[in-house]
Amino acid sequence: MAVIPGDGTGPEVIREGIKVLEAAGRRFNIKFNWTFFDWGGERYLKTGETIPEGGIEELKKHDAIYLGAIGHPEVKPGILEKEILLRIRFELDQYINLRPVKLYPGVWTPIKDKGPEDIDFVVIRENTEGLYAGGGGFLRKGTPYEVAIQESINTRYGVERCIRFAFEYCRKRNKKKKVTLVGKTNVLTYAFDLWYRVFQEVGQEYPDIEKDYAHVDATCMWFVKNPEWFDVIVTDNMFGDIITDLGAMIQGGMGIAAGGNINPNGVSMFEPIGGSAPKYTGKNVINPLAAICAGMMMLEHLGEEEAAKAIENAVIKVCRDHLKSMAAGQMGYSTTEVGDLVAKYT
Amino acid sequence: MAVIPGDGTGPEVIREGIKVLEAAGRRFNIKFNWTFFDWGGERYLKTGETIPEGGIEELKKHDAIYLGAIGHPEVKPGILEKEILLRIRFELDQYINLRPVKLYPGVWTPIKDKGPEDIDFVVIRENTEGLYAGGGGFLRKGTPYEVAIQESINTRYGVERCIRFAFEYCRKRNKKKKVTLVGKTNVLTYAFDLWYRVFQEVGQEYPDIEKDYAHVDATCMWFVKNPEWFDVIVTDNMFGDIITDLGAMIQGGMGIAAGGNINPNGVSMFEPIGGSAPKYTGKNVINPLAAICAGMMMLEHLGEEEAAKAIENAVIKVCRDHLKSMAAGQMGYSTTEVGDLVAKYT
Ligand SMILES: CC(C)[C@H](C(=O)O)[C@@H](O)C(=O)O
Ligand SMILES: CC(C)[C@H](C(=O)O)[C@@H](O)C(=O)O
Repeated sequence: MAVIPGDGTGPEVIREGIKVLEAAGRRFNIKFNWTFFDWGGERYLKTGETIPEGGIEELKKHDAIYLGAIGHPEVKPGILEKEILLRIRFELDQYINLRPVKLYPGVWTPIKDKGPEDIDFVVIRENTEGLYAGGGGFLRKGTPYEVAIQESINTRYGVERCIRFAFEYCRKRNKKKKVTLVGKTNVLTYAFDLWYRVFQEVGQEYPDIEKDYAHVDATCMWFVKNPEWFDVIVTDNMFGDIITDLGAMIQGGMGIAAGGNINPNGVSMFEPIGGSAPKYTGKNVINPLAAICAGMMMLEHLGEEEAAKAIENAVIKVCRDHLKSMAAGQMGYSTTEVGDLVAKYT
Repeated sequence: MAVIPGDGTGPEVIREGIKVLEAAGRRFNIKFNWTFFDWGGERYLKTGETIPEGGIEELKKHDAIYLGAIGHPEVKPGILEKEILLRIRFELDQYINLRPVKLYPGVWTPIKDKGPEDIDFVVIRENTEGLYAGGGGFLRKGTPYEVAIQESINTRYGVERCIRFAFEYCRKRNKKKKVTLVGKTNVLTYAFDLWYRVFQEVGQEYPDIEKDYAHVDATCMWFVKNPEWFDVIVTDNMFGDIITDLGAMIQGGMGIAAGGNINPNGVSMFEPIGGSAPKYTGKNVINPLAAICAGMMMLEHLGEEEAAKAIENAVIKVCRDHLKSMAAGQMGYSTTEVGDLVAKYT
């Protein structure tokens, strides 16, 4: 297993994640080999290097990647994100960003009148194209006549494999059996024309699954008002970025939200979706549950479903019986204590 | 005044809006001349025409435009939006979309622990460029090798006038004196590089105003968790579309949310931001407050600030003392009764 603890509180939460994974390993007889990579802001500031030469090739030798957080207050925004996080997603062709939005019992949600039975869906975000492809440029930069263009690039190949993944996932999940395409067909008449056509076409192969469509703006409203409407959502990279953060909030916040960057035929990467939270670094107050849940997703992805389930049950127990809040410094327990508890119950 | 009642429940809510505006007119001595335009889905289905020839020129002869809703279940999505709503915004160069997000006392919000003192900000959305410019195209459409490109076009000219409007608006509003640029600088490194540079540059002319920046994904979280952080937000067309709908939800929903499409040197258009709500058409159950608030914004824009304030106070009274809910069919009053009440208190 490749581990990139990263910046800020990244190493602290990864440490607890590994503690829990090792506990699950003991119980379910799984052996882990951890290979650590010191990529991140500190290394960049010292060496000028983000990913060293051959680094991506090194990653490819592992079963999966376990990532803490990338982001350093002294590094200009964009550099580490693009040269580490997005580069790994793109070069390892992790074309699915999988984001379960699930409210566990006892976890506080900022929205009224909704409980765990209402907030339980999954967002499948396309992870390798769209506005993230980096297309675009400047004309007459720095003049009053400047034009800045940013391109969303969508391919049949990329859209189809993502939509197909969503339908397959929905079938396997076997809950409401509904896939909602989230887009903006009435304005983005090229990009979402393609998405919509492929959704219809691929959808025909899944007669057992209900198909639905929602505009991205309306979707944000429904996340807050009617989250129970959703089962599996499929969307493009940019809209996925936006709605999954809103999803994180309604499931209890950055303390608990995790995601996977999946290449179904390659090496996948799992991460808590919060940032490096520099102001909490070294204080032993950050919530490690998101990293623990990322570890759980990694196990599930590697076929260790029983072990993953055991971790989830332990997380649920800790949320319900112990933690006062999901927020850093307000849990009523330290980072290491939370890790200990989950490990104990796993 | 040009009036486009539009489709579905549009005419019903516009009728109440005019009722209230006339009441304000009587009290404050303002004379209105209403010119009605029958543009919308019905006309399109009958004649194949969206805006008839010379229609845009006709609009230009008026002080402002009062719009109900455009959208018809039997018309393919995109046609009416693009050929009526977006065409008016673009051809009349209504480059600002102004969306106050204000929770009135007594109005139910789906988020916990927040009241009218927490939810009171304004989103200034660029309204004439970005992904809405319509740039893009297909390559090898319909084949397995298809590429669909959608372009966000941002000009120094367009971005600067929007950001300047935001700072001026913030100064005039005179509340928290803070402008937050919402973008995605770490990924959209062309579009939001321009936005960020212009924001810094123009911001220097406003030393009295605090400048802040937030990623769009984080902004959605904060709308739900910490809406009190915001005063004036400025953002591009697409992100503005998304966050203003989320804003509508936290201020009580489509029943109450209104917006203005502003050309500070031309003809502006005011609209309730909900859709045509076909399923409620003709039932006298739709909430007209959003349309009434749009009318109030129109008066304010035309310099009738006292009259606008009177309408706002009447709306507040009706929300606080009368309406059981903002939702269609659950108000405890009919559409016309709500209009009557607001008119009476104005
Ligand atoms: C850090 C940033 C580049 C990243 C993204 O936009 O994808 C993050 O927001 C995420 O969702 O993983
Ligand atoms: C109807 C649609 C084209 C429009 C938009 O996307 O601008 C609407 O959502 C809005 O926000 O006014």
